[in-house]
Formats: sequence, C-alpha cells, structure tokens
Amino acid sequence: MTDPLPQGATIGILGGGQLGRMLSVAASRLGLRTHVFEPGAEPPAGHVAHAVTTAPYEDAEALRAFAASVDVITYEFENIPTEALDVLQELRPIRPGREALRVSQDRLTEKTFLTDLGLRTAPFADITDAASLRQALEVIGAPAILKTRRFGYDGKGQARIERPEDADEALAEMQGAPAILEGFVSFSHEVSVIAARGPDGAVSCYDPGENVHREGILRTTTVPARLSTAQRTDAALLAGKILNALDYVGVMGVELFVTPEGLLVNEIAPRVHNSGHWTQNGCTIDQFEQHIRAVAGWSLGDGSRYADVQMENLIGDDLDRVPELACERDTALHLYGKAAVKPGRKMGHVNRIVRG
Amino acid sequence: MTDPLPQGATIGILGGGQLGRMLSVAASRLGLRTHVFEPGAEPPAGHVAHAVTTAPYEDAEALRAFAASVDVITYEFENIPTEALDVLQELRPIRPGREALRVSQDRLTEKTFLTDLGLRTAPFADITDAASLRQALEVIGAPAILKTRRFGYDGKGQARIERPEDADEALAEMQGAPAILEGFVSFSHEVSVIAARGPDGAVSCYDPGENVHREGILRTTTVPARLSTAQRTDAALLAGKILNALDYVGVMGVELFVTPEGLLVNEIAPRVHNSGHWTQNGCTIDQFEQHIRAVAGWSLGDGSRYADVQMENLIGDDLDRVPELACERDTALHLYGKAAVKPGRKMGHVNRIVRG
Repeated sequence: MTDPLPQGATIGILGGGQLGRMLSVAASRLGLRTHVFEPGAEPPAGHVAHAVTTAPYEDAEALRAFAASVDVITYEFENIPTEALDVLQELRPIRPGREALRVSQDRLTEKTFLTDLGLRTAPFADITDAASLRQALEVIGAPAILKTRRFGYDGKGQARIERPEDADEALAEMQGAPAILEGFVSFSHEVSVIAARGPDGAVSCYDPGENVHREGILRTTTVPARLSTAQRTDAALLAGKILNALDYVGVMGVELFVTPEGLLVNEIAPRVHNSGHWTQNGCTIDQFEQHIRAVAGWSLGDGSRYADVQMENLIGDDLDRVPELACERDTALHLYGKAAVKPGRKMGHVNRIVRG
Repeated sequence: MTDPLPQGATIGILGGGQLGRMLSVAASRLGLRTHVFEPGAEPPAGHVAHAVTTAPYEDAEALRAFAASVDVITYEFENIPTEALDVLQELRPIRPGREALRVSQDRLTEKTFLTDLGLRTAPFADITDAASLRQALEVIGAPAILKTRRFGYDGKGQARIERPEDADEALAEMQGAPAILEGFVSFSHEVSVIAARGPDGAVSCYDPGENVHREGILRTTTVPARLSTAQRTDAALLAGKILNALDYVGVMGVELFVTPEGLLVNEIAPRVHNSGHWTQNGCTIDQFEQHIRAVAGWSLGDGSRYADVQMENLIGDDLDRVPELACERDTALHLYGKAAVKPGRKMGHVNRIVRG
C-alpha cells in the first residue's frame, strides 16, 4: 500500500481510445493529470489528456520517456505487448498488476485460472493442431466456437463450428495462432459485474448490469439485471474471489452467463468496461473514477446505485441520432469525438435514467 | 441560429481556471475539443484541454492564431479586455455575445440595465469624485459600500462606508478608478439562479440554490433554496427577462437577494457560476454541458433536478480534508489540480447528495 497521489500528479494510460478518454476525465475530477501513450494518430483520449505520446509499443525509448513522466501506469486494454510492459515496470508501478494481464491476455490461461479458483466456465480445450481439435470436438461437441488464445475482441479472431466437418476451415481461420475451443453454454442472458479493489484490499462491486450483444458487439446494458438475490450475491462473491486471487488494484469487468445451474464466467477484462458505462449516470462515483482512485492509491468511493439506467452504445451511423437524443429527458450523451464514422465503430453511448 | 458543431469541432475558451477546466470536460462528453487561451502558466484547464495558448490578452497575433484554430469562442470570466474581444470577433463568433460582456463588466452599466428592465436592485449611484460620493451618501445613507465599477471579484475592489466620515478613505481605496456606491439591502438570504438560453431562444433555469459567503467568498450552495413557490417563479421569470433582453446564448449566473418585499438582483455573471456547481451531481445535464451545448449551437438538455445537493467549496487548507471526504457516502469530489495551496484559493469543491 502506497501513499495516495497528490494534486497535480500524473497517471500514465496505455491506449488512447474512449476508455482512456473517460479515465482522463475522471482523473481530472480528482485533481490528477493523465499522459496517454498511443500508437495511433489523433487518439480520442488526447482531447482531454494533459500529454500524449504517439509511438509504437516497440519503441523502448518512447516508453521509458513516458514512464519517467508519470507517477503510475494503467491501461485501457489488456493486449499490451509483454516486452513493452517489461520496459515500463522497471520505472513505474503498473496497476492493475502484471498477473492480471498475463491471465487475461490468453483465453486458455484465463479459463484455467478461473476453473482453478473453483469457478465455472464454458467447457474448453487447448487446440494446437487438427488432431487436438478433433479430439476436443468429441468431448465438447458441436456447435462450438474456436477462438485465438490472444488478441481477440468484439467477435474478431473467432470461428463458429456448427458440425465436426467445419473443423478444418475454422482452424485455417486461426492462421496458425494458438487457439482454444469453447463449448456453447445454454444461458438465459448475460450480465456483468464491474468490480473494484482498492490498494488496501477493499473490494466494491457495482450492481450487475444485463448485456445485449448484436454481431458480437455490446449494444445495451440495463441495470438492474434480471437476477435473484442469491445470484446477485454469487456475482459479487465470485468477482471478489477473482480480484483477491490476483491481488488486483483497479476496476475489472467480469462477464457472466446466467444459467439454470448458476453463474458461469464468460470472460474477465482487467480494466474499465463498456458494460460499466451506466455508472456515469447511476452512481455518485463511476467506474472510471473508481479505477483512477485505486490506481492512484486513494480509497474507493461510494459506488452504490441510485437510479435504474439503460446504457446504449452508439455505433457507426447511430451518431446521426444525436440531435434527437440530445433533447430527450433523463438522457445523458457521452460522445467520443471521433470524426470518422465507420460501421461497427463505437462513436459514443447514451445513458437513459429511470428514477424511482 | 447556426448549425450545431459536429464531432471533433473545437470550442475556444478564454481563461484557464477551474471553470474552463470543467467546461472542457463537458465539451468532451459531447465529442467536442477545447482550446484554452490563458496568460498564466500551468492553467488548471490545460490538463483537460486539447490545446493551450499561453499569451497575454494584448498579444493580437496570438489571439488571431487562437481564433483561427477554433469554431466558436466562449469565456470563463467576464473581465476580458475590450481590445482582445475586438480582435477575436473579427474571426469567430463569441458566445455569450458582446452585449452581455459590456453590461456585466461594469457595475454601473449592469445595475442601470437591470433597473431599466424593471428589475429591483440595491440603491446605487455613480461616483466620480468626493462631491458625488457625499451627495450619494445623503440619498442612499450609511452604511453603504463603495465598489470599483470594473474588475472586482471575491470581495476585491470594495470599501465599506460605515459612517459618512469614512467616505474619503473609501474613495482613496478606489485608487482613482470609476466607482459606484451601493446601499445595503436588508435581505434574509442570497440565492442564485443558473439560467441557460439556447441558440433558438429557449430558456431553461436550474432550481435556485441558496448561497452562504464568508470573507467575500462563496462557501456553500444548497438546493433547494428556501423560497416560496411564487419566489421560485419570480426568480425564473426575471432570469429569463435578462437573458432575452441580451439575446443571450449560454449559461448565466444571477445572484438574488431575498427580501420581504421580493427578490432583488445582486449581480449577474455571463458564464457558468460557482453557485451552479451542484448541478454536476443533481441534474442529468449540468451547467457546464448546458453552456457548451448553447455555445456549440446544440439544443439545451434536461436540467431538471433529481436530488437535494449541498455544494461546499474547498478553499486553501480545506484540501487537507480530501482523504476523509473521499470516503464519505453520497459525496462527489471535484478537484482542480492546483499544486500550490494558498489561503483563499479555490482548490476544489464537494457535492453532497441527499436522495429523496
């Protein structure tokens, strides 16, 4: 446990997308600055960060200069190259820590970690070649889904196997990358828990939200989620178990499948999460500030929910709806300042508040 | 009425203090960038602005480059030199407009404007010399307060006249600056209305807040204020009258004295206002976003109040209380990232929320 960062201290953020942008805004509320490291030009987070470094993750010199200019390092995505992390951690603490990244960067490691903790997941198997895929399909059965172990997001790097005969084609889609086969789970809906753990080990979970995806992309999160009281307790307990096992500091997104037999962990993300955006208008302290507090060595804040909220992502052309959305009652817009609209690109989100 | 600014457009902000900082954050929620113009080094708004120009208001070249880089210009304080505004308005629209600045930059002009509108103010008189001061004191009576017509804030540029014999000393304190004598008003408390007017002429008033000052500096604003229903209506109507008379675009702070005979206007500020900070945690759309919406040509948002709030300014050493405040329930911190603590310096504020 370290001293809390003082006014004017700087948090380094790896990644300059909308999550980094909203983390920067949250940092500003606490009197902290941010420095964003992002390979791409014109990152959305750059509009509200105090400093931006534009360089690839292979540029050790740029990484060192970045680390030297900040007090602590966090990130908005989990797929940071290991070599970059090696360079950075020589100079400054990285929060959440390396173990959380190691586990969540690899679907096989992640699922193994979760089952070792006694948590339930979809059935899975390590796939190294056509033989292991055939064998796994016999155990898990079809339909199943083949995924690259690393670097997948929003449905990318995945191939669905309807029948055993699809196996070869699916394997070819992995382009030789290490893969994992996951069985389908019969679930009624998906929820996620946004959980935070402070530098003192205190854990605080936001009320679970219910997620709806379309084409592999999150569309809406609604709180409260349809869960029994027992399921609500389960969700918080299992999230706490994960955070404690990793000696985690920061916010984590835990996606869960709701099944008649209980909750299954779909995946974990060691960062603020799209399904936690509703907290901006449903809680006094939102997920972004909670993450910054933990990373900065501050106490966690009050994350209790005071309203029902539906978060809807604005994707691609949804941006055209902004003029109407801006006039709706109890509706808060959160736009990312991306000038170029592309199909499937997250341009912003809207939180609709239902007060009791 | 102009087209609403699109994603990625830039709002120029004159002044880089905490108001500019929170305006920048609000702009980011709407996908807009900000460029801050500020003579002082290390402005708090610079932590969250996309660009900062550090130059004096006399630097016409810097002003022109600033204006050329933005789509519209607004400001966080009203005492902008007229010559700077002349340079800027050649290049970009200034919102709120020049008339609001002209009126509010000068206490005499402001009070005359208000009384011409049929609104009540404290008794006042133009003071040009010792003779006019003596004469005014005979009409208005003592105690009274002598103020410079321009450039006063947080109690600066003011001298209290307890008895007619204090007149010469008070006049000397004005250091030859044009002055105004204001009579004291017997009021029970002070409230303020944060009012917004959109580019289409729509007016929206936040619920009035009740202000408590100490040593000339605002300490707390509490909503709801102690007001009768009739007084609440009066407050909104008179604010609307002021905004319409100025063909105003943006947010204005209107300070009112509550007296047995009704509401008196104390002063108006053509900008977001310290007494409106509670809106950050009491309304879906806060005063900062409302101002940015208006200035950017967007529709005003939903400014209805959903909770009781007490805003408390954190001044100077109050910053030492942050570790405890950070742990309080229903409490939101808003810190300005100022590294140097000085007595009387506004370091942040805290909003305490009381839910119904």
